[in-house]
Amino acid sequence: MARTALPRPTEDELIARYFAPLAGEGGLGLRDDAAVLAPSPGHDLVLTTDAVVAGVHYFADDPPASIACKALGVNLSDLAAKGAEPRGFLLTLALADGWDETWLSEFCTGLSEAAALASCPLLGGDTVRAAGPTLIGITAFGEVPAGTMVRRGAARAGDSLLVSGSIGDAALGLKLRQKPAASWGDGLSYPVRAALVDRYLHPRPRLALASALRAHAHAAMDVSDGLVGDLAKMMRASDLSAEVAIADIPVSEAARAALAVEPALLDTALTGGDDYEILCAADPEAVPALREAALRAGVPLTVIGTVTEGAAPPVFRMPDGAARAFRTGSFSHF
Amino acid sequence: MARTALPRPTEDELIARYFAPLAGEGGLGLRDDAAVLAPSPGHDLVLTTDAVVAGVHYFADDPPASIACKALGVNLSDLAAKGAEPRGFLLTLALADGWDETWLSEFCTGLSEAAALASCPLLGGDTVRAAGPTLIGITAFGEVPAGTMVRRGAARAGDSLLVSGSIGDAALGLKLRQKPAASWGDGLSYPVRAALVDRYLHPRPRLALASALRAHAHAAMDVSDGLVGDLAKMMRASDLSAEVAIADIPVSEAARAALAVEPALLDTALTGGDDYEILCAADPEAVPALREAALRAGVPLTVIGTVTEGAAPPVFRMPDGAARAFRTGSFSHF
Repeated sequence: MARTALPRPTEDELIARYFAPLAGEGGLGLRDDAAVLAPSPGHDLVLTTDAVVAGVHYFADDPPASIACKALGVNLSDLAAKGAEPRGFLLTLALADGWDETWLSEFCTGLSEAAALASCPLLGGDTVRAAGPTLIGITAFGEVPAGTMVRRGAARAGDSLLVSGSIGDAALGLKLRQKPAASWGDGLSYPVRAALVDRYLHPRPRLALASALRAHAHAAMDVSDGLVGDLAKMMRASDLSAEVAIADIPVSEAARAALAVEPALLDTALTGGDDYEILCAADPEAVPALREAALRAGVPLTVIGTVTEGAAPPVFRMPDGAARAFRTGSFSHF
Repeated sequence: MARTALPRPTEDELIARYFAPLAGEGGLGLRDDAAVLAPSPGHDLVLTTDAVVAGVHYFADDPPASIACKALGVNLSDLAAKGAEPRGFLLTLALADGWDETWLSEFCTGLSEAAALASCPLLGGDTVRAAGPTLIGITAFGEVPAGTMVRRGAARAGDSLLVSGSIGDAALGLKLRQKPAASWGDGLSYPVRAALVDRYLHPRPRLALASALRAHAHAAMDVSDGLVGDLAKMMRASDLSAEVAIADIPVSEAARAALAVEPALLDTALTGGDDYEILCAADPEAVPALREAALRAGVPLTVIGTVTEGAAPPVFRMPDGAARAFRTGSFSHF
């Protein structure tokens, strides 16, 4: 382990200094071997776990607070898609050689803010050293009224398909963040580029949609690996297929500007990943109520297509009716 | 990522081939974004997370099934110490470059066996690649009747201190496993050496003690970082101190043989870690019932000392009454 001039704090000191201030009620001040959590009466717990790794899911020189926002956000996004309200999380932090307390302090500030925003306190964790890149593993807990968790594989033929917010920004932001930066970025204004990079750095988990999904959707998942691949996953889990009108897929002003400069970026936008929007399927008759509930929660939901019979991969149609083929079906972080 | 002659399976293929067969009821076949878990009526969930890293917590060339046994076992040991019955676990597997399916297959076989033995099914997980050493992070869930989780910090002055099984074997086994192998190992028989290495490789989480701890103990924790350091942690959490009679600490035949060859190994045995035994505090009047319940569960519990007033570190006394000082207070995996 690399030596610094100052002695490294012990794990107990790190916990007391950085993590205990984030602890929620069931975390017992992070002074026990375990945390305790009881769902509200009549509720199920929803469990999800996702890890992010430096150099795979984020850039090692991303702002530490942004890395924390992403590490928690990707898990909260799963809870949102299941219709769950957050209850807390556990953190596994594998710190690379050469970490310093400035990084950890900024990371914990970002984590604290993201946790507070979602009412999702830290309940416990484990800190280990890694001779490789830093890894941040989070297990998040939410709750739903018993039996109401929104499944991935429960779409029905004839359902409308809807997606929240806008698709593609984060994948375009990633391309701008890579080196050498994408040349098409030169054709974009500074605010447009900043908006795209912001979406890459800072997932906005759609927790506000949770109750609307429970009430009105048959099936849902979060869009983390690109809309094309994730829709295919949802349809495979439902043993169904789908038709999507590409022109109906919601795209932000910033992404529209990028696509105007380089139309081939449509592939990136629809397969690139890191959207952390919600994809859901609902009875067409439930769509007005679902969209109204989403509107009241401040999150736009847009109809992009229809669930169809069959086992074929979903078809994405261009405005002229032609099916669009994509170079990569799904972004894989693995 | 290193290329092999055969194409690597995708994450979805890995899940279907290796992990889905381990999935329990709430894991939804590992085909959803999340798992669902409801504690039994009137119960709290107990949550714990611990990660093991190649080269830190185990040797990269340890048998894959043993690595799985350890990764799950260290978490089950925490549940046992809290008096909790296992309900399931989530797995985060960060695979180092160069992993192969033979390794993964053997790992999953070991994981399956350890999970079946503890009635603790896989509920979900995440597989990522790591440009560093393999990391296995597990979050385990147990349950206790509401309000009965056994705390670390609830010992009382005058309590008896007890420890399960035997202390020191794993730390001695680790020394035998290191290269160059400890020279004192030459003085031990082959079965003795194997017994010590076995304890290092294969934690035996003391789940059978859970109900006895809930019924009769004031406080408990598992011994993972050495008895000396872990007792100090328990007493700090309880704002108390302790006196321990070293001669009363239970030691296996194998460890006794090692200590006969090299008496200085007492430090290793008591501070070296990886015991995964239970340390608990109970009212002296409750000790007979606690030990009887442990006996019925097939796990010996031995009285090693007493909880005392004060904030001083626990005192470990030699047979002549002298306090023994230890070179290192606690093994730190961090």
